[in-house]
Amino acid sequence: MKTILSLVLLLFSLFPKVQASEPAKQKDAPLEVAVSIHLNKIYDINSVNQTYMIDGYLVLSWHDSKLEKKYCRKYGNKLVYENKEFPKDILVPSFEFINILGDREIINRRLIVNSDQNLIYNERFHGRFTTPMDFHKYPNDKQCFTIQLESFSMEKEDLVFVNPQLFPKVLDASYMEEWNILDKKDYVNEMMYNHLSANKKGESFSRCNFEIFAQRKIEYYLWKVFLPIGLLVVASWLVFWVKDFANQLNISFTLMLTMVTFNFFTSSLLPTLPYNTFIEIVIISGYISIFLTLIAIIFTYAYSKNKRTTVKINNFFQVFFPLLYILFIVLCIIIIFV
Amino acid sequence: MKTILSLVLLLFSLFPKVQASEPAKQKDAPLEVAVSIHLNKIYDINSVNQTYMIDGYLVLSWHDSKLEKKYCRKYGNKLVYENKEFPKDILVPSFEFINILGDREIINRRLIVNSDQNLIYNERFHGRFTTPMDFHKYPNDKQCFTIQLESFSMEKEDLVFVNPQLFPKVLDASYMEEWNILDKKDYVNEMMYNHLSANKKGESFSRCNFEIFAQRKIEYYLWKVFLPIGLLVVASWLVFWVKDFANQLNISFTLMLTMVTFNFFTSSLLPTLPYNTFIEIVIISGYISIFLTLIAIIFTYAYSKNKRTTVKINNFFQVFFPLLYILFIVLCIIIIFV
Amino acid sequence: MKTILSLVLLLFSLFPKVQASEPAKQKDAPLEVAVSIHLNKIYDINSVNQTYMIDGYLVLSWHDSKLEKKYCRKYGNKLVYENKEFPKDILVPSFEFINILGDREIINRRLIVNSDQNLIYNERFHGRFTTPMDFHKYPNDKQCFTIQLESFSMEKEDLVFVNPQLFPKVLDASYMEEWNILDKKDYVNEMMYNHLSANKKGESFSRCNFEIFAQRKIEYYLWKVFLPIGLLVVASWLVFWVKDFANQLNISFTLMLTMVTFNFFTSSLLPTLPYNTFIEIVIISGYISIFLTLIAIIFTYAYSKNKRTTVKINNFFQVFFPLLYILFIVLCIIIIFV
Amino acid sequence: MKTILSLVLLLFSLFPKVQASEPAKQKDAPLEVAVSIHLNKIYDINSVNQTYMIDGYLVLSWHDSKLEKKYCRKYGNKLVYENKEFPKDILVPSFEFINILGDREIINRRLIVNSDQNLIYNERFHGRFTTPMDFHKYPNDKQCFTIQLESFSMEKEDLVFVNPQLFPKVLDASYMEEWNILDKKDYVNEMMYNHLSANKKGESFSRCNFEIFAQRKIEYYLWKVFLPIGLLVVASWLVFWVKDFANQLNISFTLMLTMVTFNFFTSSLLPTLPYNTFIEIVIISGYISIFLTLIAIIFTYAYSKNKRTTVKINNFFQVFFPLLYILFIVLCIIIIFV
Amino acid sequence: MKTILSLVLLLFSLFPKVQASEPAKQKDAPLEVAVSIHLNKIYDINSVNQTYMIDGYLVLSWHDSKLEKKYCRKYGNKLVYENKEFPKDILVPSFEFINILGDREIINRRLIVNSDQNLIYNERFHGRFTTPMDFHKYPNDKQCFTIQLESFSMEKEDLVFVNPQLFPKVLDASYMEEWNILDKKDYVNEMMYNHLSANKKGESFSRCNFEIFAQRKIEYYLWKVFLPIGLLVVASWLVFWVKDFANQLNISFTLMLTMVTFNFFTSSLLPTLPYNTFIEIVIISGYISIFLTLIAIIFTYAYSKNKRTTVKINNFFQVFFPLLYILFIVLCIIIIFV
Repeated sequence: MKTILSLVLLLFSLFPKVQASEPAKQKDAPLEVAVSIHLNKIYDINSVNQTYMIDGYLVLSWHDSKLEKKYCRKYGNKLVYENKEFPKDILVPSFEFINILGDREIINRRLIVNSDQNLIYNERFHGRFTTPMDFHKYPNDKQCFTIQLESFSMEKEDLVFVNPQLFPKVLDASYMEEWNILDKKDYVNEMMYNHLSANKKGESFSRCNFEIFAQRKIEYYLWKVFLPIGLLVVASWLVFWVKDFANQLNISFTLMLTMVTFNFFTSSLLPTLPYNTFIEIVIISGYISIFLTLIAIIFTYAYSKNKRTTVKINNFFQVFFPLLYILFIVLCIIIIFV
Repeated sequence: MKTILSLVLLLFSLFPKVQASEPAKQKDAPLEVAVSIHLNKIYDINSVNQTYMIDGYLVLSWHDSKLEKKYCRKYGNKLVYENKEFPKDILVPSFEFINILGDREIINRRLIVNSDQNLIYNERFHGRFTTPMDFHKYPNDKQCFTIQLESFSMEKEDLVFVNPQLFPKVLDASYMEEWNILDKKDYVNEMMYNHLSANKKGESFSRCNFEIFAQRKIEYYLWKVFLPIGLLVVASWLVFWVKDFANQLNISFTLMLTMVTFNFFTSSLLPTLPYNTFIEIVIISGYISIFLTLIAIIFTYAYSKNKRTTVKINNFFQVFFPLLYILFIVLCIIIIFV
Repeated sequence: MKTILSLVLLLFSLFPKVQASEPAKQKDAPLEVAVSIHLNKIYDINSVNQTYMIDGYLVLSWHDSKLEKKYCRKYGNKLVYENKEFPKDILVPSFEFINILGDREIINRRLIVNSDQNLIYNERFHGRFTTPMDFHKYPNDKQCFTIQLESFSMEKEDLVFVNPQLFPKVLDASYMEEWNILDKKDYVNEMMYNHLSANKKGESFSRCNFEIFAQRKIEYYLWKVFLPIGLLVVASWLVFWVKDFANQLNISFTLMLTMVTFNFFTSSLLPTLPYNTFIEIVIISGYISIFLTLIAIIFTYAYSKNKRTTVKINNFFQVFFPLLYILFIVLCIIIIFV
Repeated sequence: MKTILSLVLLLFSLFPKVQASEPAKQKDAPLEVAVSIHLNKIYDINSVNQTYMIDGYLVLSWHDSKLEKKYCRKYGNKLVYENKEFPKDILVPSFEFINILGDREIINRRLIVNSDQNLIYNERFHGRFTTPMDFHKYPNDKQCFTIQLESFSMEKEDLVFVNPQLFPKVLDASYMEEWNILDKKDYVNEMMYNHLSANKKGESFSRCNFEIFAQRKIEYYLWKVFLPIGLLVVASWLVFWVKDFANQLNISFTLMLTMVTFNFFTSSLLPTLPYNTFIEIVIISGYISIFLTLIAIIFTYAYSKNKRTTVKINNFFQVFFPLLYILFIVLCIIIIFV
Repeated sequence: MKTILSLVLLLFSLFPKVQASEPAKQKDAPLEVAVSIHLNKIYDINSVNQTYMIDGYLVLSWHDSKLEKKYCRKYGNKLVYENKEFPKDILVPSFEFINILGDREIINRRLIVNSDQNLIYNERFHGRFTTPMDFHKYPNDKQCFTIQLESFSMEKEDLVFVNPQLFPKVLDASYMEEWNILDKKDYVNEMMYNHLSANKKGESFSRCNFEIFAQRKIEYYLWKVFLPIGLLVVASWLVFWVKDFANQLNISFTLMLTMVTFNFFTSSLLPTLPYNTFIEIVIISGYISIFLTLIAIIFTYAYSKNKRTTVKINNFFQVFFPLLYILFIVLCIIIIFV
């Protein structure tokens, strides 16, 4: 008899163990999962793909009142499962990062089962995240680096995220050398989806958001783009001090073609945006300005009756072109940044 | 006796479990699998490789009337299997994306077994998809981003896809910032294959298609390619206002060589197509136009008898070249786009 | 007693199962494996690395007369194993692609065991293949895209491939947009290896070959390389119509330096070959031609006694240089392509 | 009876085995883990991403007084587990590299259990590490290549690292061909974290640090950047020996535009830093110097009354500009390097 | 009784199986492992990273006198284990490639257990290997492509490699199209390590080396680098035949700037070496030569009293500069290559 009993037990232990989630029975209160993320490093911020890599720690903690007794009493203090299959009868809510590209890589993971039915899940993850970026003010743009966490299968009535916390509490500047960190925010909201079942009006999920607001540092672009472009534009105005037409032509052409190569420079820094960023407006207005200079000197040369008229026209342009360009740039700055 | 019985059961549970599909027996009606896809993100649209990354959710749902009783009754409501081995005696039809490059990455997956024998399979996947692209109208081309789903091993008489649905119902513009979404379509068709068995005329499979039609936004190319090319071509016409041969030569040559570098620009944007796209026609006609200008001024210089003839010829070219180029471009636009 | 028996059975089922291949016993006839490949896509054809990606289906089918009875009778019709561990007592011959770089990725795989002891193994694979390429005629070269399949461990006396078939029977043009498909071939040959054992003269393996012959389409290179080079070379001849030495010099130098940049263009298209391809011969002969023009005008200028001699020499060069270059190119075409 | 007993044993062996870490019970002394790392290769040092690959061996050794008896006595000498699942009742402390990007790849790993309860864990790993780099002195900068090791889950009161050792004891020059190795350091410190639990003031972990200090060799940059820039700047001063304005202009412009292209050269070598490195200061001061030359010659030309004044001014500039530039560079060197 | 017995056996089969290596007991003779490697392909030889991919077959064969009887007698002929877990009581020595970057990918692997206790392990592997390269003679440098194999955990007293063999015996030219294969070598030596244990003077391991010596083919560089540089330098000497200063200046400057761009060309071919390779010496001496030409013509122009002196000086330079440059290059060739 006992042999049979034990064999039945044995058999039972070999059968597929089913995770009987069955949460909708008596409309329990949803499982409350506290989330905290510790950022180890944000790196490889890529404006072309609008992505950034995050290396961090995720801590989920919740209270499971249905946790089987054996995990609570048997071993006294607490149980730790590290980097291996967690016991199948402990429900660890499966979650996902919404704005991740590909799956996250888990470096280490751990489940702590405390004797008071509180569970803590802890992992070190790293992954490539994405966020829509607005580049109108580039290279002085503000962006929001965000991490969005959602349960994969438990709807809002089954699981809600609570108490989101982003560590370290103060993000020092060394986190993103090329950015000024402005602010950070963590909050929970909810999302609706319609694709999961045909007969309903949509499922609602709890979403946990961690956001870091940062502004790109402009120094690099000042020295690498704005300074040389400025010099080239200023150099283009010098033609009006040159009396010889051949030299004027030579200068204007060389400058215009150089400006065109700057045109390609931003291609490696930005995606193929359907709008012009601030840096592109500066470059394009740069070569249009030089092109206008070119037209000006050619028609001055072609239609000017005598030397004196030419000098007069040139004297006018010596003031007109700088004024025009500076006015345009100031206007752009006002429109874009104010 | 009972010991033996239970041991036989035990042994049975250790033997290789065979999935007895045997579908052709009594010519059952094929399994009807409803498919819906929720697009999370389309990104990294690469014209050179004709690929795009898709991050989405796939939901398959079907009714399995042969599902074993234990899954239907035992646990009341519904069973959920998450991210682990599904029970071997539940048939989850294996499918594949036809136009994927490499395998899809599965981030989370879940099987819901309802007590009414309805099953729902749900996964978050991401993968690199491909579609043949026609670039004749590039950079104002229309493309069709498609996802093709087929059963891997169940022929049309065993499995048909039904009721394909693409979510979200309205794809807002933020899905593809560089494209205007025109339309979307989802339908089921069938495909024939001959390679699977030697003695038959070919197997027929049910294929589920999700298609998004979109048109590339042209603004980026207007500012980055067409504007500078336009300026260069206009500048090339200015030589006919210049009276000095040396300067004419200098301008024409510098411009022609700059146009040649534009020639290489599209190499990084497009594959090595055996035909010319619209953007390439503009570039090539640009440098041919400048080359003709060059020939014109050299032969004017070489064979013109006196200054007055030269001026007359130049005056003619001042009108002729702009007209010729504009006519050609208008003609191209009409042929390609209308 | 029976308990013991069943436990022994149980124990047996836990012991390491050994695949007793032992094929050389009575010198059986070798296993005949029919192979067919269905090409889904050939893509990413890379001339620099001499590689191409293949996404396809592989079907192996064979008759195993030693197949255990239980697989033949028990379940009536046929057994299907999909994407999971195949039963260990069924011998699925392990094979490998010889000319693959890295391992193939298997997207889905399936084993069908028919009751008549015929087995069909089917997989969707994709991988990066390689083949030695001859670029002498580049960009109008013919290449052979090949897939070589060999058994990993069963020598020719144990396994031979038979009846290789490449599907689809007619490869339409859309398979390789940038290539014209000329022909395809599938055949079985054999290969000798010496490294497997010390005391023998070498092992012989059966190899299955699938070959697609294709010719690169030249249109892209005509427009992107040959046209601009042609224009530059023609422009270089124009110096002999220019009477002024300074302008002659200016033109020749600018052209020569532009030709040198074309020199680097092919670096991104081809490996560092120890021989010159056709396209490189055209480029190199281009800048040598321009260099000779330069020498010609400088020495004409330096040693010409009077204006009339200069004009005469120039008139001679007006015919001589074009003739020389065209002759050389025609000669090259004849030598390389005929 | 015995059957039951043995079956209970059997059942027990099937139950989830729990790693009863429970370290905080009687406040034992923390586990002391000795760490040594043998560097096989440091390679792919990437200044743009501030990363480097490390291929090395890690050896952890500790004394586990609670180790089960069976591992100590049964097999006499010592037990070796290689590249397979280690026994679950042996506690191998899980650790992580803090400054790694992604997970490390383990090539081989081994656990040696000595009969005196001393355990040695040994692995060959390779991974991409990162460290903040200061480029102010680039390309003659000093960097610290560091490896930071921390326990994943055992706090300082449970585990401390002791006796860190970095092998080989003397790093010969071949380790980093492009760097001069200055020094190395290994030490243990501790780190505080706040994110792991809500109710405490933070957990403290023992961290093991291995640091290699190295200085970039400057020869490459001397020949590839400083020499050509030097020549260009020297060439720009030559204009003051040229008497013709057109030639002066021509030289200055060509040089300035070439300097601008050098501006882009460092973009591929360095990240988009918000400050200027030494190499960038040299380049920027280079083209500003040439720009000033340009301004000087244009205004000399525009406002100089007669030839003699021009010559005088030029003679002054022949001394002034070289002096100015050399002074500025010397000043920069003093400020940055001293 | 028997039930108990069998259950004990069963229990035993569930306990962790320990690989009792215990080699140091009676100081047995070390295990002698014969190694042979069959190279399938060497490819992707990358001078910048000093790496190369190897796709090959590795065969290890040894005699294990302690091999359990069941493997020797039971099945008659021989046992073959393919691509699956090998039996745990057969000791397959774990090895590693020392100079590999990352882990090797194993495509197929097989263990043959012969009844005479001889074992053969066979795998197809591929991986990225590295070797220190000396580029002083680049692009005519000789390199040694090496594969270094070591046991991971068995010291020299436990395992020695014997009889290393590299197949195919004759490496035909098609193996490395861009290299001339000079020689190959295979030998066994030993290495000392200190990091494995604290109390010893270092462990000694047997290392198996396979080396292929090859010389880079120079043809590509002759046509792509040396020819255009040669033309540019020759063109720079032509200025001494030009009588006009403006043209002299124009030529010299354009040439010098073009040479500077060649300077960047090698950046994509070589790492940032702290020494100059032959190709870089040619390029640098090229632009220094042109720079000297420039200085020469400017000071000739600035300080030459009359036309005749200028012509005389130019005549001198017509011989001096070519001689100087050729002498320098010949000297370099002698120093570097002889």
